[in-house]
Amino acid sequence: METPRGRKIPKEPIEGPFTLFLWGDEKFRRRKSILKAFSANPIFSKSSVVTPSLARKDAWTQASLKARELIRLKLTENWSHAQFMEAIRLTDNMLPVQPQFRIFLSNLERQMSDEQKAIWVPKAERFEIFGSYAQTELGHGSNVRGLETTATFDKEKDEFVINSPTLSSTKYWIGTTGVWATHSIVVARLIVDGKEYGNHLFLTQIRELDTQRLMPGVEIYELGPKAFQGMLGTDNGAMQFHDVRIPRSQMLARNAQVLRDGTYIKPKNEKHSYGSMVTVRAIMAESTGWDLLKPVAVAYHYTTFRKQFRKTNSQPEETTVIDYASVRHRLIPLLAQATALVLVGQNIKRAYDAYTANFLKTGDFSQLEDFHLQTVGAKVYSTEIAGHGVETCRIACGGHGYHALSGFGRMYANAINAVTYEGDNYVVGQQVPRAILKHWRDGTEASLPTLSYLSKMRDRSKVSAPRIESEQDWFRPEVQRWALEERLVNLVQQHFEDTDAGRDTSYSCHALTMAHGDFVYWRGFEELLSDLDGEKPAFLEPVKALFHAFALSILQDPHHASLANALPLTQAQHRTVRLAKASVVDEIATKHIDGIIEAYGFTEFELDSALARPDKNPYEALFEEGAVRSEMSGNGMSHLWPMMVDTRNMWRRIEEEKAGKAKL
Amino acid sequence: METPRGRKIPKEPIEGPFTLFLWGDEKFRRRKSILKAFSANPIFSKSSVVTPSLARKDAWTQASLKARELIRLKLTENWSHAQFMEAIRLTDNMLPVQPQFRIFLSNLERQMSDEQKAIWVPKAERFEIFGSYAQTELGHGSNVRGLETTATFDKEKDEFVINSPTLSSTKYWIGTTGVWATHSIVVARLIVDGKEYGNHLFLTQIRELDTQRLMPGVEIYELGPKAFQGMLGTDNGAMQFHDVRIPRSQMLARNAQVLRDGTYIKPKNEKHSYGSMVTVRAIMAESTGWDLLKPVAVAYHYTTFRKQFRKTNSQPEETTVIDYASVRHRLIPLLAQATALVLVGQNIKRAYDAYTANFLKTGDFSQLEDFHLQTVGAKVYSTEIAGHGVETCRIACGGHGYHALSGFGRMYANAINAVTYEGDNYVVGQQVPRAILKHWRDGTEASLPTLSYLSKMRDRSKVSAPRIESEQDWFRPEVQRWALEERLVNLVQQHFEDTDAGRDTSYSCHALTMAHGDFVYWRGFEELLSDLDGEKPAFLEPVKALFHAFALSILQDPHHASLANALPLTQAQHRTVRLAKASVVDEIATKHIDGIIEAYGFTEFELDSALARPDKNPYEALFEEGAVRSEMSGNGMSHLWPMMVDTRNMWRRIEEEKAGKAKL
Repeated sequence: METPRGRKIPKEPIEGPFTLFLWGDEKFRRRKSILKAFSANPIFSKSSVVTPSLARKDAWTQASLKARELIRLKLTENWSHAQFMEAIRLTDNMLPVQPQFRIFLSNLERQMSDEQKAIWVPKAERFEIFGSYAQTELGHGSNVRGLETTATFDKEKDEFVINSPTLSSTKYWIGTTGVWATHSIVVARLIVDGKEYGNHLFLTQIRELDTQRLMPGVEIYELGPKAFQGMLGTDNGAMQFHDVRIPRSQMLARNAQVLRDGTYIKPKNEKHSYGSMVTVRAIMAESTGWDLLKPVAVAYHYTTFRKQFRKTNSQPEETTVIDYASVRHRLIPLLAQATALVLVGQNIKRAYDAYTANFLKTGDFSQLEDFHLQTVGAKVYSTEIAGHGVETCRIACGGHGYHALSGFGRMYANAINAVTYEGDNYVVGQQVPRAILKHWRDGTEASLPTLSYLSKMRDRSKVSAPRIESEQDWFRPEVQRWALEERLVNLVQQHFEDTDAGRDTSYSCHALTMAHGDFVYWRGFEELLSDLDGEKPAFLEPVKALFHAFALSILQDPHHASLANALPLTQAQHRTVRLAKASVVDEIATKHIDGIIEAYGFTEFELDSALARPDKNPYEALFEEGAVRSEMSGNGMSHLWPMMVDTRNMWRRIEEEKAGKAKL
Repeated sequence: METPRGRKIPKEPIEGPFTLFLWGDEKFRRRKSILKAFSANPIFSKSSVVTPSLARKDAWTQASLKARELIRLKLTENWSHAQFMEAIRLTDNMLPVQPQFRIFLSNLERQMSDEQKAIWVPKAERFEIFGSYAQTELGHGSNVRGLETTATFDKEKDEFVINSPTLSSTKYWIGTTGVWATHSIVVARLIVDGKEYGNHLFLTQIRELDTQRLMPGVEIYELGPKAFQGMLGTDNGAMQFHDVRIPRSQMLARNAQVLRDGTYIKPKNEKHSYGSMVTVRAIMAESTGWDLLKPVAVAYHYTTFRKQFRKTNSQPEETTVIDYASVRHRLIPLLAQATALVLVGQNIKRAYDAYTANFLKTGDFSQLEDFHLQTVGAKVYSTEIAGHGVETCRIACGGHGYHALSGFGRMYANAINAVTYEGDNYVVGQQVPRAILKHWRDGTEASLPTLSYLSKMRDRSKVSAPRIESEQDWFRPEVQRWALEERLVNLVQQHFEDTDAGRDTSYSCHALTMAHGDFVYWRGFEELLSDLDGEKPAFLEPVKALFHAFALSILQDPHHASLANALPLTQAQHRTVRLAKASVVDEIATKHIDGIIEAYGFTEFELDSALARPDKNPYEALFEEGAVRSEMSGNGMSHLWPMMVDTRNMWRRIEEEKAGKAKL
């Protein structure tokens, strides 16, 4: 390969058939126009300050000014919601405007009556009001039924009175609420005439529109810093209500209602209530893979540049580190997994958007259960892989990955929190095994596309192991399918056994949820590949290789006794799966990876890493941007030099003092 | 259990037989006296500022003032080196004084001639000079032979001239060098009369003692921020030399020397050169377990407080989260692993200290190879477990673990870097398989205590699987030993096979190094338990339970096909190991954990987490210290309010503008 590796980082997105396949046409065009707008706008420049060195409030201020500019761009350029959301993601900063479309507006749209929508949706769309969604409480996360905030109907005044009865009922982690939000959709237990009706949603004004001051009875604090310097741009809030009054018309009334006389009209269907979580998780299914692709790309650029040791003494130069198995086997499975997350995830999102459009038109929510399962499974599966994957990329880059300007720290901080937000993965992940158990027992698995594979497992006794004689056999989809199903069946059976014995499965079933994800994403990727196989595009080979690397790295992970070990295989067969995985990893590393990374084509702006600059190599960038520009370099700390000199003279004074005392 | 759980956090260390067993008498007493000194000293107070919210240079300044105060304490209280090192660890801040004893002084002591030591050691001991160790270069990490810095002998002036010939030869990540250090031990290729003699050590003055200004020809930059806001107190440096001159007497001359006439006296033994790494790794072997115990203790305090959901509908209260398998099975194996790291690690350190004392007296370094292997294995094994374990603790605490004041972020940032510093684990870890291979082939494994277990493996064919019929059988040490050896043998054989086939084993052999660690730590823990078994102390049962939890969580990890799956076991036997592990985890959770955490007895100061306060519950602490005190709460950001109000009016202006344009 003669092209200099590790330096092909475009200034702007470059179009091509492989690129459009990976990104999808629409997303690619959105991204291209946003990056163009950003590159012309100094507010989005990433090179002016070293954010991780700033005081938190200064970094947050910077992000707030970006948020303001994004709103201006949305309004002047008529950006769509999708375009705007994409733009927020590209700023990489979890801006305070993120909840507006992600969760505020989507709730208004789904949960408000048409009359309510006519009033509120336009205000939210044009950012006349700034919205948040207040569900989580200090003492109550995943268990929504445990929420304590109350909304009591005051019939006389035709108002709801919202209260936080305890410290633990303080609304917590509420995005954009610490400083920015003017309105919040508050999840509270509805009480009418002393009777409780469970949680409902209440649009509550929390700050004055003219002054940004808190409304009477609303007590809000900004939550303080996050781990790893994460989410620097978000002002999460802690919020308490002390007899806060809102008109009856601000209870979101599409499904349940309270009439003027206090009559409670219950919702036609209870399942509406989890629609908002399904929406957010569908967004996550689509976007999470990209959170992993970027660090993989950064690690690629660095490890194709860095050299260390010689593999043999006769080599004239040190070996490029990506040519070591220790680097390849960490990065390439992640590239394959991230590709699976992106390709299968965008199909989930597309299908869900189609369902939503139809639901808003016809009211048909018969597919909601399936989408609930699909998205909760995708949320758990994708966030586990992406979150931990970012760290694997960083660590594979060795010591320099620990420099803040490598960007990995920021990427990890903003990816790993997804394993606990929108439902802790260990908690919400239980919904998958629960559904498996229920539908298996009821014999209804065929009614849900997500679980239809269970039918095949009913007559597992008839399934015989395929013939596996060589490495090559592991590239046959039916062999991969057999192995993945075999594991899934084992885990399902173990789960049934544990449940029957009354054991606590909250830990072990996480592995089942992940195995379910392995299978579902494998199946989705395989279908996609079959379609592609008919079209025979130029990029078929690399996509095929990624597919196999995805499948085989599930089956063969030497860090733990490999999954293949759990299969009924001979010693010789075990060897074949090991070699098969190694061969596809090597194939990608030697033939395809440059083309794949080029096709993803992340720009310098998107990667935002000193290890991936188009015009400087990683050493030049680390040295110039990290060290030379450090605010502590040069005379930056010279005001402390006299203290340091004095410290080095301290021993003399102390010895003299001791000697003095000894004399006395 | 009637005592309120999750709140027993002592203000100062409490003595007791179990505590002294876990800490060791000496370490316990050192810690107690340091904590006493700290508690009386406002400089070490952790409650005055929220460090993660500060600008980096302010946080660093704060740490520098602590460093100065530590030096004062050392000198006035006559603290030993060990006491001082322990004190640095307790500040949790990676202070700029850390390298002084960890690596600067230990190199002076080992590598200087007696005449040199007489001059320099006292200066370093009393901090008259501030030292660093400059080995790593921007382009060269683990491969020490690749270093480019040169030290050329100028016979005429009797001096060495030090140079950085390239950007990639810039000394990088050099601790305490960005601002503080006055002297550095520079690793450079010695050149005499145009001939190269490989790397040697040169004590080089880098800053003026009176002013802290850089010496002529020395160019230094501070390295900039680290990932995750890590190591906030350390000023790592990037350092270049441009014809920097030092007298010949400042080449460290215990082993190799250059005489006045340029004659090169080569070292008697080459192995001396890795002595300094062995020393640092021995320190790491002893200390790393504690880096994991603290987050485990914080997670214990939080998960014994937090309640979520009910296990059954009839429960009056929600379930305390530690009572879920999903929490227990994440935390308790870590408690067991951390205990193994601490107990076995302190034995490694003690033995190495004894060896060093003897070596300095007699020059006998016959055991160096064994200690090299022991410490490199311990470094890799302990840092992998501790680093990733901290994150497991944080994630097991759910959303609130992501708040910076939980302390997990700081703990992770300061623990995970150990997997890449002092030798990247994937690189230095290869030394274990390499030694296994060599001694196996040479038949010399019996000469090294660390590898002596290999002898038993030679006649593996004679080893038959033990009888395993029930859960209870897994608590028999001979069954555990058989299982661990079985896996190790499989991995060793696979490694031999791969090596013979010329395959790149740099990835797969990491698993072998970890399996070696599993076995070595298991064996060490088992020996320790045998001794204890004779004494029958009151705390025998909890230690035994931790031992079994350690062993069984190696064998059974449901997140990946379990190790046990790789063993020749029947389906029924597989079930027994699963149940055995669950039973010991439950035993610890219900009977022992309170006592174990109490025996470790970390104080509020040591844990430094809002989730572990003696006088406030986690919700109170998060709310008061995180939210109410946030610099962005209240009117903290009121200067931005007008901007926010204006942003919400932007749509009107833009619409008017558009309408105006449309009219034209």
